[in-house]
Amino acid sequence: MEETLALARRLHADHPNLPLVLRLIENTGVRKRHIIQPITKTLEHPGFEARTRIYTEHAKRRIPPVIRRALENAELDAGDIDLIVYVSCTGFTMPSMTAWLINSMGFRPGTRQLPIAQLGCAAGGAAINRAHDFCRAYPEANALIVACEFCSLCYQPTDDSVGMLLSNGLFGDAVAAAVVRGSGGTGVRLERNASHLVAGTEDWISYAVKATGFHFQLDKRVPGTMRPLAPAMRELVASHRWNASELDFYIVHAGGPRILNDLATFLSVPSKMFRHSRATLTEYGNIASAVVLDALDRLFAEDCLTDNARGVIAGFGPGITAEMAVGTWQQSTLDAPTTNLSFATA
Amino acid sequence: MEETLALARRLHADHPNLPLVLRLIENTGVRKRHIIQPITKTLEHPGFEARTRIYTEHAKRRIPPVIRRALENAELDAGDIDLIVYVSCTGFTMPSMTAWLINSMGFRPGTRQLPIAQLGCAAGGAAINRAHDFCRAYPEANALIVACEFCSLCYQPTDDSVGMLLSNGLFGDAVAAAVVRGSGGTGVRLERNASHLVAGTEDWISYAVKATGFHFQLDKRVPGTMRPLAPAMRELVASHRWNASELDFYIVHAGGPRILNDLATFLSVPSKMFRHSRATLTEYGNIASAVVLDALDRLFAEDCLTDNARGVIAGFGPGITAEMAVGTWQQSTLDAPTTNLSFATA
Repeated sequence: MEETLALARRLHADHPNLPLVLRLIENTGVRKRHIIQPITKTLEHPGFEARTRIYTEHAKRRIPPVIRRALENAELDAGDIDLIVYVSCTGFTMPSMTAWLINSMGFRPGTRQLPIAQLGCAAGGAAINRAHDFCRAYPEANALIVACEFCSLCYQPTDDSVGMLLSNGLFGDAVAAAVVRGSGGTGVRLERNASHLVAGTEDWISYAVKATGFHFQLDKRVPGTMRPLAPAMRELVASHRWNASELDFYIVHAGGPRILNDLATFLSVPSKMFRHSRATLTEYGNIASAVVLDALDRLFAEDCLTDNARGVIAGFGPGITAEMAVGTWQQSTLDAPTTNLSFATA
Repeated sequence: MEETLALARRLHADHPNLPLVLRLIENTGVRKRHIIQPITKTLEHPGFEARTRIYTEHAKRRIPPVIRRALENAELDAGDIDLIVYVSCTGFTMPSMTAWLINSMGFRPGTRQLPIAQLGCAAGGAAINRAHDFCRAYPEANALIVACEFCSLCYQPTDDSVGMLLSNGLFGDAVAAAVVRGSGGTGVRLERNASHLVAGTEDWISYAVKATGFHFQLDKRVPGTMRPLAPAMRELVASHRWNASELDFYIVHAGGPRILNDLATFLSVPSKMFRHSRATLTEYGNIASAVVLDALDRLFAEDCLTDNARGVIAGFGPGITAEMAVGTWQQSTLDAPTTNLSFATA
């Protein structure tokens, strides 16, 4: 945080809104972030082509150990995986990284590839939900989720809108992986999922796609989006005959501190319900689609839930879209889809 | 074809391999292609940012009528759709076009969005397969598939490798849509699907992602990929207790004429089995993920299959990946997932 504020003061000394930017960055609550390159390299823009090369090099180096840990935690081998959902909005390649992963990590040639690049921060929730759907369709199947977000590769030195400067102080890099088992395992038994698009907000979170790559555009109304999304979450929970105010855990995307505070208010739950999401934000920054996986990892590490504890997992991102799931904590082996998580920072 | 050859002769008069390029283009068998802009505009490169804007403008104008026709054919309203699978590898936006479609065409805010940008020409098959999986998981659900490919927006005037020049003479623009109903409807009853990645071919079909956008890179070994993929297709068919040499229809991605000829040889089926794919190639060029949907539309239009006729749908693309499905033709209403097709060119 100190380094970020000092950098902002130095690079944008003449910015008319510098005091506002500094206050916004301080208010994020982000203490520490991890980035894949040294800060001097990060602040350079070597071109979209070079950045794509850096993305690929780091992805190939940093993803495999994270996947191995996820598979170990799920007590599965690469050969047991039927679907790889790969989510990443901060680097674009074709073929997707899934082809390289299958070729180099012992996955079967028949493994389904589902790369998603356009759901942004909602993609963590979307990946869990599509993996859940897949295991509903094929109860014997297992799905691997990989979230690879190198947000620092979308740093745009020439953009100095308030929204962009705030983003520069908010986003971090991370790789995360998780397994959704068709049956067995310890974790969250996924029971129902839903998506919700808030009408008329398409341009609130967006990329401008330019010669210099992806330019993140953040509308100042975004922090207020829990007002329309909290009811959608409440409705999903109610459709499962639960009450959103009486759940045992919430694992949500921590886009910023206001998201978490508003959810506590609108859902009438104690603020500490969002401690895992808040810890991710504080210790890694907003790591896009990887937030929900890291927050889930903290839920696993805390290890204080009892069997059948009820909760929600939700990602929020461009659209504005929420990808939400309800499920129960299961320590013991069972027959329904269950997430098993592993996480490591870049 | 005549215009393309004349253009190639004029633009690349000094190219050392011009005779080879002209022969390769002639051999594609493409007679006609549709492109979204006049040829003079198409040959300009106004920059990646401007191209992204053109992509979005044309997508918004050209997709809705195609979707409306697909919904009509499937006898469904927008409100009946639970999932939109949007496949497009020739333009990149975030949010995905799915957000705009939901907001502007009367889809429910709860419609799931599945945008896929990184599976190239295999994405048509992948979209059908993921829609099928979704309807397996939720038998009451319906999925809409949209393929939007403006290949002409990836024209790169400075690239003059043989592979690129061939591509310039091969790819066309198209928008296609199809519906997979959880139950009811007329069309192909989807029964089983599979994916296959050919090891060690990641760099055979790929994008170089540069300041100028996506640069298509085609290895000269690609036309030979049916040798490893035909056995994978045969294996899928055998797992369904059918014989690949005795099927009633084949709807496959027509990447080029050799693909179709090789498949006829390797699967021991008559060449006319690929007439629909060949017609798409001849009349539209290689329209990427939209090929299988257009070829399916021709199968519908031909209307000569009897109930329970057996067949294969397969997309081929980067990876090298095949996304394959087996199913039966069903004229009458039934309870299993069924595709209903609509197609229109840009």
